[in-house]
Amino acid sequence: MKKITLAHGSGGTLMHDLIKDLFLKHLDNPFLNRLGDSALIDTRKKKIAYTTDSFVVNPIFFPGGDIGKLAVCGTVNDLAVCGARPQYLSCGMIVEEGFDYTDLEKITLSIKAACRQSGVNIVTGDFKVVEKGAADKIFINTSGVGEVFEKAHLSISRIRPGDKIIVSGPIGDHGAAVLLARGELKFRSRLLSDCAPLSGLISSIICRDIKFMRDPTRGGLATTLNEISLASGYNISIDESCIPVRGPVMALCEILGLDPLYMANEGRVILIVSSGSASRILSRMRRHTLGRASRIIGEVERRRTKRVYLKTMVGGARILDMLMGEQLPRIC
Amino acid sequence: MKKITLAHGSGGTLMHDLIKDLFLKHLDNPFLNRLGDSALIDTRKKKIAYTTDSFVVNPIFFPGGDIGKLAVCGTVNDLAVCGARPQYLSCGMIVEEGFDYTDLEKITLSIKAACRQSGVNIVTGDFKVVEKGAADKIFINTSGVGEVFEKAHLSISRIRPGDKIIVSGPIGDHGAAVLLARGELKFRSRLLSDCAPLSGLISSIICRDIKFMRDPTRGGLATTLNEISLASGYNISIDESCIPVRGPVMALCEILGLDPLYMANEGRVILIVSSGSASRILSRMRRHTLGRASRIIGEVERRRTKRVYLKTMVGGARILDMLMGEQLPRIC
Repeated sequence: MKKITLAHGSGGTLMHDLIKDLFLKHLDNPFLNRLGDSALIDTRKKKIAYTTDSFVVNPIFFPGGDIGKLAVCGTVNDLAVCGARPQYLSCGMIVEEGFDYTDLEKITLSIKAACRQSGVNIVTGDFKVVEKGAADKIFINTSGVGEVFEKAHLSISRIRPGDKIIVSGPIGDHGAAVLLARGELKFRSRLLSDCAPLSGLISSIICRDIKFMRDPTRGGLATTLNEISLASGYNISIDESCIPVRGPVMALCEILGLDPLYMANEGRVILIVSSGSASRILSRMRRHTLGRASRIIGEVERRRTKRVYLKTMVGGARILDMLMGEQLPRIC
Repeated sequence: MKKITLAHGSGGTLMHDLIKDLFLKHLDNPFLNRLGDSALIDTRKKKIAYTTDSFVVNPIFFPGGDIGKLAVCGTVNDLAVCGARPQYLSCGMIVEEGFDYTDLEKITLSIKAACRQSGVNIVTGDFKVVEKGAADKIFINTSGVGEVFEKAHLSISRIRPGDKIIVSGPIGDHGAAVLLARGELKFRSRLLSDCAPLSGLISSIICRDIKFMRDPTRGGLATTLNEISLASGYNISIDESCIPVRGPVMALCEILGLDPLYMANEGRVILIVSSGSASRILSRMRRHTLGRASRIIGEVERRRTKRVYLKTMVGGARILDMLMGEQLPRIC
């Protein structure tokens, strides 16, 4: 009998297949079928974005954040990359019997701080307790609602050859920080997760010249670019020498045979912008704390084989596939 | 160190304390503070209801439903009792590694059927897998958004002495059916959970004379009436001889020393209606499949000691407290 594997939750190919063959097949409707980070709903007067995410990160506290901060930032970011101003969040917690009250309070305070920073409120919630052993400590689901900016004109169908790819900062920090926090490696570093709400950065730059945005979470930069290439039809090429990766992330990846291009991020955004506007948008991004290290890393190609290419430092080019299985379970 | 217990997730006093002392304390905002089944959000042109619930029911398949049907009905009902027409749902699944694909498909088909019956769509979703042993089979969170009917004028502050209490059908079926499905008891019955979407019934009766509605889920009828009494300030009395309870539910409760008044329901609604309109609303409810067995079970009293009284069949009266601890974990 077919079983669900960790790879089905990876953000990679297997998860995409599951979504297509099971969920879209049965729950088919025009909102869900778009498979955006948020659903976009037209009401009489305005467009609303609506999204959800469950968080099962292990460990629940890690350098740079915890499951509470992550649960707010994750949902805020899914709304923000759809061009919406995050406004209202829901929060559902599933807690294992015996969980420390003080840890629950710490997590609640992180939620509070992240809500403040993002300008959102938790307006509805739910709290469930399961018996010891039926859940690993705490899982948090958040959903979120936000109004889409009138200035936002985001659509994968607007992507054209020559468009530039921008990333808002170093990649892989979250994945590496969580991996290190598991404490199974003798590797010391002051590396912090990049976990942060992108709503401020994005609202400061949103304009018609931004054609598409996405936050490269599970599956990392490589998987997100593959999704964009698949959906737009155009090849994408990125330049290894332009992709910012911190020293400790690179070192950790080398030791473990991981690739930072597939590591999860929780406070980074990838933008596809028209060629002529790229330097203007880049300089505006760099004025924001969360965008100081923004870089143009590549562009949309004319060819339509739906491939992502990495131009390597030694002058070659290799195909970057979508993540196949699971690189790192419970990273978010 | 203070620990979270199963009773913190019971829907009873301990959960109310936790919500007040932890979540409301830190996440304080006017939407959340109202503690409604849904948050009510005023947009420029209309009022929107927004709610969330996590479902951890055990077993995941039970007579009359499964975790998928429950996850849709639970959220649809929370919107409906706030006077909203449920429209858009989110769905986040956390699945244990090794879970059967066919079971996941069955659950997805239940979600589909319940969405059809309620007239809603799942518009956004999330799927996470955790390693074997880190979660018990599957947990589902749904959140939902709906537009509040203009005809709805629901507010606990409109409750006055003399108002009638209506319940839409027999109580305790869901709690009893799930308990039996656990298979630990040698007690056979064809009892089905009452799990059903209330949106159709409620939209067929919604009018100004309905002052307040709530679905008595965790904690059952007694806990819900206590919440209403606490929030309105008025005592409530109900008449034991009028409360519909099915034979097998009563028998099961007698064997186990449980009280059907505290058993969970997933397809029942309690209404507080003005005295003069009660019989008219009752007869309209009885025209709907899910309201055929509706009964007036009691009324709002003049006294303000915030107590709920049960007039017993033998002619006495006893105080019905809020559920203190946990009667039955993982009932929804």
